[in-house]
Amino acid sequence: VVQLEINQLKKLLTDIFLSLGVNSEEASIVVGSILEAEISGVESHGLLRIKPYVKRIENKLMNTQPNIQIVNDKDSIIIVDGDNGLGQVVAHKTLKICFERLATRNVILASVRNSNHFGMSGYFSRKAAEKGYIAIVASNASPTMAPWGGIDPLLGTNPVAMSFPVTRYDNFTLDMATSATARGRIRTFERRGEEMPVGLAIDKYGKDTTDPQAALDGGTVLPLGQHKGYGLSMFLDVLSAGLSSASLSYETESMFQANRVSNIGHFFLLIKLDGLIDSDQFKERMEEWFHILKDSEARPGFEEIMIPGEIEQRKLNQNYSTISINKKTHDEIMKLRERLL
Amino acid sequence: VVQLEINQLKKLLTDIFLSLGVNSEEASIVVGSILEAEISGVESHGLLRIKPYVKRIENKLMNTQPNIQIVNDKDSIIIVDGDNGLGQVVAHKTLKICFERLATRNVILASVRNSNHFGMSGYFSRKAAEKGYIAIVASNASPTMAPWGGIDPLLGTNPVAMSFPVTRYDNFTLDMATSATARGRIRTFERRGEEMPVGLAIDKYGKDTTDPQAALDGGTVLPLGQHKGYGLSMFLDVLSAGLSSASLSYETESMFQANRVSNIGHFFLLIKLDGLIDSDQFKERMEEWFHILKDSEARPGFEEIMIPGEIEQRKLNQNYSTISINKKTHDEIMKLRERLL
Repeated sequence: VVQLEINQLKKLLTDIFLSLGVNSEEASIVVGSILEAEISGVESHGLLRIKPYVKRIENKLMNTQPNIQIVNDKDSIIIVDGDNGLGQVVAHKTLKICFERLATRNVILASVRNSNHFGMSGYFSRKAAEKGYIAIVASNASPTMAPWGGIDPLLGTNPVAMSFPVTRYDNFTLDMATSATARGRIRTFERRGEEMPVGLAIDKYGKDTTDPQAALDGGTVLPLGQHKGYGLSMFLDVLSAGLSSASLSYETESMFQANRVSNIGHFFLLIKLDGLIDSDQFKERMEEWFHILKDSEARPGFEEIMIPGEIEQRKLNQNYSTISINKKTHDEIMKLRERLL
Repeated sequence: VVQLEINQLKKLLTDIFLSLGVNSEEASIVVGSILEAEISGVESHGLLRIKPYVKRIENKLMNTQPNIQIVNDKDSIIIVDGDNGLGQVVAHKTLKICFERLATRNVILASVRNSNHFGMSGYFSRKAAEKGYIAIVASNASPTMAPWGGIDPLLGTNPVAMSFPVTRYDNFTLDMATSATARGRIRTFERRGEEMPVGLAIDKYGKDTTDPQAALDGGTVLPLGQHKGYGLSMFLDVLSAGLSSASLSYETESMFQANRVSNIGHFFLLIKLDGLIDSDQFKERMEEWFHILKDSEARPGFEEIMIPGEIEQRKLNQNYSTISINKKTHDEIMKLRERLL
C-alpha cells in the first residue's frame, strides 16, 4: 500500500478529469464520489475506477459536456436523458432536479437513460437522507451475473442503496449489490492476491470457485440468496432501464471494456416527510430504535451490532488527512498523471 | 397428506370466517389469498394461517367490521388506517384506492397502519401487474429475526413482492422474505418432521442449527445475505411502519400468539406506464428479455432457467380441482369446522 495526502490526491484526480475536458464542477462531483467510496472502505467503487473512466472518455464513449434533460414529465415521475454524461454527473443532476420537485410535493421518482457507471449508489441516497428524505437509488450495470440456475452473464449485479434520516445518527444507508458479492470485490481479491470464500462466484463451466481469476475469466458472480438476488437484479433493471428505455444490463458491455456507449439506466425514489408526517418525531423514533438494536445481545464472534452504513460513516467521520491505497491502483494513477498532465 | 376438493375447501373456509362475523366479500378476499398461496406452493402463507387468524378474531384482536380510511393524503402518497381489520382486507382495500388514484396519475404510494398479517405479498403485487402496473408491496411482521450479528429477535422477516406486466407471460413476480428463509418455511419443516439446511436459522444461544424446533424455540431466522437482509428488513419496516406510525416489528407480538392488537404496517408503490411510456412496447421488450434468459445455458444440476414467479404461476394455471394438504393442517381445520359450524 501507498500512503497519500487526501487533498493532494483530490487535486491530482481533478486535474486528470480537467485535462480530459470535464468542467471543474463536474470533475469535483466525480472525484468526490470516488474518494468517498475509497475513504469509506468501498474500494470496489473507488480509485480502481479511475482508469476505466479515463479510457472511456478518451475513446469518446462518454460525453464530458452532456446536455442532461427531462424527456418525460408526469410531475411525480420523470424520465431523464443523461446525454451519455459521466454517471456521477448525470446522477447528481437528477438528484438536484428531484430535490427541486420536492419543494412542492412529497414524492418524486426518476428513471434515467443514456448514462454511465455512477459509482457508489449510497453516495446519492446518503445525500438525500442528509436533506431529510427517505431515498432509494439504484442502477443497472454491465452483465456479469447469470440468472439463477444459469451460466451466461446476462444480468448486472445491479446495486441499490436505501437511506433515511435519523436525529443524531448520521443516517441509515444500506448500499448493496444484488449479487452475493460486488464484482469489484472480486477484483479487490484479485488485486490483493487472495482467495475468495465459496458461494460468491462460479467459473465459466458453472462450477463454484474460490479463485478470483477464474471468476473474472469467463465466470460470473452468483446472485444474492440464489433466486432472490436474481429477481431483485431483474426488477432493478426494469426500474432503471425498462422505464427509461436505457439498455437492459444484458444489452450493455463491461465498463472495463471500452468499445461502445453504455446507455446505463438509473432509478431514484425520494419521499419527503414534512407535510406528510411529523419529521422530527419520525427521526427521534428511528434514533430510539437504533439504540434498542445496538443495545441488544451480540452473537458469539460479534463485538457490536452495527446499523447499516455505520461502518462507512465512522470512517468518513474520522476525517483523516491521509489515505493508504493499493499499490497497483496507485501505479495506474501515476501513469495517468505522467501521460495526461 | 389429505386430498380435498378445492371448491368444497373454499366453501368450508368461507363459512368459518362468516361464522366469526366477517362479511362475505371480506371472507372471500381472505380465503382467496390463503388458497392462492396454498395452491401455488407457498404453504407458509396458506392454510396453516387459518387457525391463528381464527384465534385472533375470537380474542377480539382483529376487527371483522373495520372502517378503513385515508388519514393523510398528499395525492401521490397516502397514509391509510386499517382500523385493525384482517390484513388481506386492509391490503385489498388499499390496493383498490391505489387503482382509483392511478386513473389520473402515474405514481401512487401508500403506507398503512393498524393492520394485521396480510398473507402472501405477491398476491397483491400480482393483481397490480395484471392491471398493467409495476408494483412493490411490502409489510412488516412480528419479530422473529435478529439484527445481523445479534441474537434477540427484534426484526420481522419483512416480506416484499415486486411485479411487472409482460405481454404473453402472466407477469413477473418476485415474492421474498428478507430472511434467509420465511419463518413459515421453518414451520413447514417442523410440520413435516424434516431437518433444515444450515444457514437458515440460529438457536437461542446464537448457534447455527438444522433443527426446526430449536430455531422456533427461542431461536431466530438469519437475515438474507447477512447484513443485506438485515438492512432490507429495517428499510421495509420504515416504509411500512415508520411512515404510517404503525408498530415497528420489534413492537409487535408473534402472530401465533394472541394477546394484543398487532398494528402491523404495509407499503404499496404502483407505477402506471400508460401516459408515461408506450406500455405495449415495454411489455414486448420484457417478453423478449424473458426468452433470452430462458434460452440461455443452464448450470449442471438445473433443468431450466425460471422467471421469478413462473413456478407459482404454472401451478395456478393448472387449475386442478383438488389439492393435497398437510394432515396436521387438515385436522386443525376440521376441528374448527366442528367447533364453529
